[in-house]
Amino acid sequence: MTPTITAFESSPDRGRGLARDMRVRWALEEAAQPYDVRLLSFSDMKQPAHLALHPFGQIPTYEEGDLTLFESGAIVLHIAQHHSGLLPADANPRARAIAWMFAALNTVEPPIVELSLAKLLESKQPWYEQRQPMLQERARNRLAELSAHLGDTDWLDGEFSAGDLLMISVLLRSKAAGTLDDYENLRAYVARGEARPAYKRAFAAQLAVFTASAAR
Amino acid sequence: MTPTITAFESSPDRGRGLARDMRVRWALEEAAQPYDVRLLSFSDMKQPAHLALHPFGQIPTYEEGDLTLFESGAIVLHIAQHHSGLLPADANPRARAIAWMFAALNTVEPPIVELSLAKLLESKQPWYEQRQPMLQERARNRLAELSAHLGDTDWLDGEFSAGDLLMISVLLRSKAAGTLDDYENLRAYVARGEARPAYKRAFAAQLAVFTASAAR
Repeated sequence: MTPTITAFESSPDRGRGLARDMRVRWALEEAAQPYDVRLLSFSDMKQPAHLALHPFGQIPTYEEGDLTLFESGAIVLHIAQHHSGLLPADANPRARAIAWMFAALNTVEPPIVELSLAKLLESKQPWYEQRQPMLQERARNRLAELSAHLGDTDWLDGEFSAGDLLMISVLLRSKAAGTLDDYENLRAYVARGEARPAYKRAFAAQLAVFTASAAR
Repeated sequence: MTPTITAFESSPDRGRGLARDMRVRWALEEAAQPYDVRLLSFSDMKQPAHLALHPFGQIPTYEEGDLTLFESGAIVLHIAQHHSGLLPADANPRARAIAWMFAALNTVEPPIVELSLAKLLESKQPWYEQRQPMLQERARNRLAELSAHLGDTDWLDGEFSAGDLLMISVLLRSKAAGTLDDYENLRAYVARGEARPAYKRAFAAQLAVFTASAAR
């Protein structure tokens, strides 16, 4: 059964691949699974029909038969557990790849999002510049630790996995904000992700949605 | 084989159960699994020996035979997948419980941690009071949506699961900060978690570590 995901009708990132449906599209492309997309406006997302699928009124969701899931991390894990290509088969490497999924979302992403939110919502405030060194340090500490771990390897732990998919997705936000400039191996790591055919197909699909919405 | 976890030698929360080893202890207690604990100072956590186990130099870690994991969410999921008591057996409810684990860590926790960090690190700054309404609103929006979803049910989706374990762990930080006061059903939900015998054993174990360290 072809799953249906939800995505922004008009993404606030203007189709740069930073919206969270991109993570799910990329996972589905890596797993070579077709999918349908239902587009939502910001108003649709807070209506009862969508809140019944996603308690926090966000995108993406994932509907497949009588299963409905929300949270991009959970959806990527579900896809990875049901199709090959995103998690190692052996138990220990598989558990470690899942640990990297959580690390991407719970340890690396929060300080990167905090930096983005400050720029988006507080850049006109008198305290914006004064808070920057603290926020930059918080994000850079994580990036430096990640860079030290990655070293000169291609992926975080052996073969490409859903852990890399989520980590690269998180780092793309950092790249867009310029905080990745000092970490050459992380930039090369992100570029390896962007070069994957599955990534390119997913990126093109989400950009096409934005382009169509902008043309209307 | 008995797993070994790492925890703070002297927890910054003074044994109130907010450190992340608590989540792993609670999961192990729900699964009725014995465990050993290795205590670390803040200095130990940034040494090469620990960084080899945890790239971000934090607690907890989980060592079991030749498997080492980091990230409390991943460790709780690993325990839940290998023992009964933390995830439904049927595929769809199981996937939904895992979605709630990600929701706790990636959607509900970040604004709650941001509020705590602001209080801890910026309460003496001239902008602290001015930023409070924005930070409070960000956390309260999530809590209001969660409260609306929970309604008058006991747990997030059917039986108690690892999703509840992580969500209640996140809300305990909110309770400590006072932001839970307006959400009666969330306070009752947290109290149901705290009343579980497994929670009580885990809480007592981490408090005993702090009490012993304070007495030295």
